[in-house]
Amino acid sequence: MKCLVNLNGEILPIGEAKISVMDHGFLYGDSVFETFRTYYGYPFLLRNHLDRLFQSAAGLHLKPFMSKNNIAAEVLRTAVTFWKRYSMCDLYIRVILSRGFGDIGFDPSLCPRPTQIIIVKKFTPLSKLTYERGVSLALVSTLRNHPKAIDPNIKSGNYLNNILAYMEAKKQRAFDALMQNNHGYLAEGTTCNVFLVSNEVLYTPSVECGLLKGLTRSLVLDIAKNHGIKSKTTKIKTKHLFLAEECFVSSSLKGILPVSHCNSRQIGTGKPGPVTRKLMYLFENAVKHSIEEEYCIAL
Amino acid sequence: MKCLVNLNGEILPIGEAKISVMDHGFLYGDSVFETFRTYYGYPFLLRNHLDRLFQSAAGLHLKPFMSKNNIAAEVLRTAVTFWKRYSMCDLYIRVILSRGFGDIGFDPSLCPRPTQIIIVKKFTPLSKLTYERGVSLALVSTLRNHPKAIDPNIKSGNYLNNILAYMEAKKQRAFDALMQNNHGYLAEGTTCNVFLVSNEVLYTPSVECGLLKGLTRSLVLDIAKNHGIKSKTTKIKTKHLFLAEECFVSSSLKGILPVSHCNSRQIGTGKPGPVTRKLMYLFENAVKHSIEEEYCIAL
Repeated sequence: MKCLVNLNGEILPIGEAKISVMDHGFLYGDSVFETFRTYYGYPFLLRNHLDRLFQSAAGLHLKPFMSKNNIAAEVLRTAVTFWKRYSMCDLYIRVILSRGFGDIGFDPSLCPRPTQIIIVKKFTPLSKLTYERGVSLALVSTLRNHPKAIDPNIKSGNYLNNILAYMEAKKQRAFDALMQNNHGYLAEGTTCNVFLVSNEVLYTPSVECGLLKGLTRSLVLDIAKNHGIKSKTTKIKTKHLFLAEECFVSSSLKGILPVSHCNSRQIGTGKPGPVTRKLMYLFENAVKHSIEEEYCIAL
Repeated sequence: MKCLVNLNGEILPIGEAKISVMDHGFLYGDSVFETFRTYYGYPFLLRNHLDRLFQSAAGLHLKPFMSKNNIAAEVLRTAVTFWKRYSMCDLYIRVILSRGFGDIGFDPSLCPRPTQIIIVKKFTPLSKLTYERGVSLALVSTLRNHPKAIDPNIKSGNYLNNILAYMEAKKQRAFDALMQNNHGYLAEGTTCNVFLVSNEVLYTPSVECGLLKGLTRSLVLDIAKNHGIKSKTTKIKTKHLFLAEECFVSSSLKGILPVSHCNSRQIGTGKPGPVTRKLMYLFENAVKHSIEEEYCIAL
């Protein structure tokens, strides 16, 4: 696996990047993280991801030992080291902040220093055909975590809820799972937000439904607003999914990915619809412009 | 820290017991575990804990690579190594089975082999005075995980729900937190089950309330049955906690621990009541007899 790990500031090959079994990130999943990718070699929305990392950390009373600026610099240094060692390619980047090493117990003061990890590896996108055809989802019986149990807006190392949902979806030969909340409203996928199109209006579950306020979700809503596509964030009953004309999911790694089927039932025409295709086109442009602005370059 | 770790069969000092940052136990909390203690030097209910470990693992479709017999032998070997290196004392033992090393992603097939860890360290019990006085709990706003999101009966490495509850309790200067489910019924503590006594009847929340079916909880119910104490597992509204005559919590590490206060309000007389004290006495005897039977010895 071509992969480099920046462990507390030291860049290591994957085989040497090890943490203690007493790291609370391992014992309890007591950690927060962000994943993102590079486009044209530049980490996309790096600032926003680090802002959210720090928000998640605050939600767990976990204090990072580096500033956002320094973490950003470490991300870029690790990426450049990867490119020098292997070859130039777009990258998958994961930044993890765990509670760190400490005796067994829930008291955060047992762990004097968090563990900071940056994992960098080649980004392998889904095939062009997948984006052209769309994917199938499964509406699973695993409910999304209750926001008062573990807030989905804390992007933490507690991912079993998502994994259980994913396993259920795989059993149904679906690409991914779609989860509901305990009131029967749509929440989100295992690593993505969901959007529907009905009568030319874009719908996505509101944050109160128990979901991560995805950065790509926000960008899609911004794009829609700027291009005259009416949008609504609201509570959505699952039946509306099957009545929708179009459906897609959004995530930092997948961008906008059309959904053709759910529970083996065709959504709309079963092909990426006009609103989805328009948004995919506008999203690509938005990525380009955002990177030009963020890194002061012309692509 | 006097602590030994058995990592996939190799006994290491704590400073050398390390796992990859790509272990899914670290990335996602994708692991199961059991904690227990020795009494008189013998691991208590070892068989039952390993049974439950395997049940938790099955809930995550995680296949242990050792049999229960072999894990039990490894537990004893690690304990004996500890006693030889340090000194004879009662031990805290934690057995962890994580998904293991694998590329990033939710598919279990990414991880060909689980990581098996046995952590052994000196067991430090709570003080005698704590058992004589009882502890204070805080009924927190963090809800227990919804059983359809992550079943509390899968004892997994996803412990943020418990940690968030614990932090809330500590803010209120309580010893531990007590969590409710999303219907307002009592569920459990962060690492313990809860019992109430009203009109000489022992009450504890039923499993449908969303809780781990504790081994000590089962033992307490057995003891009650065998000694003419009427007991009921049922849904319990939080108000009944404050109206109860007695309250205690149970866990493998704490045994039976009286509760004197909740949310700073006194429960009953504020001292361990007659039923609690009787059960504590009977529990001690039961532990002794169980170990004599399990290990074919006379204590």
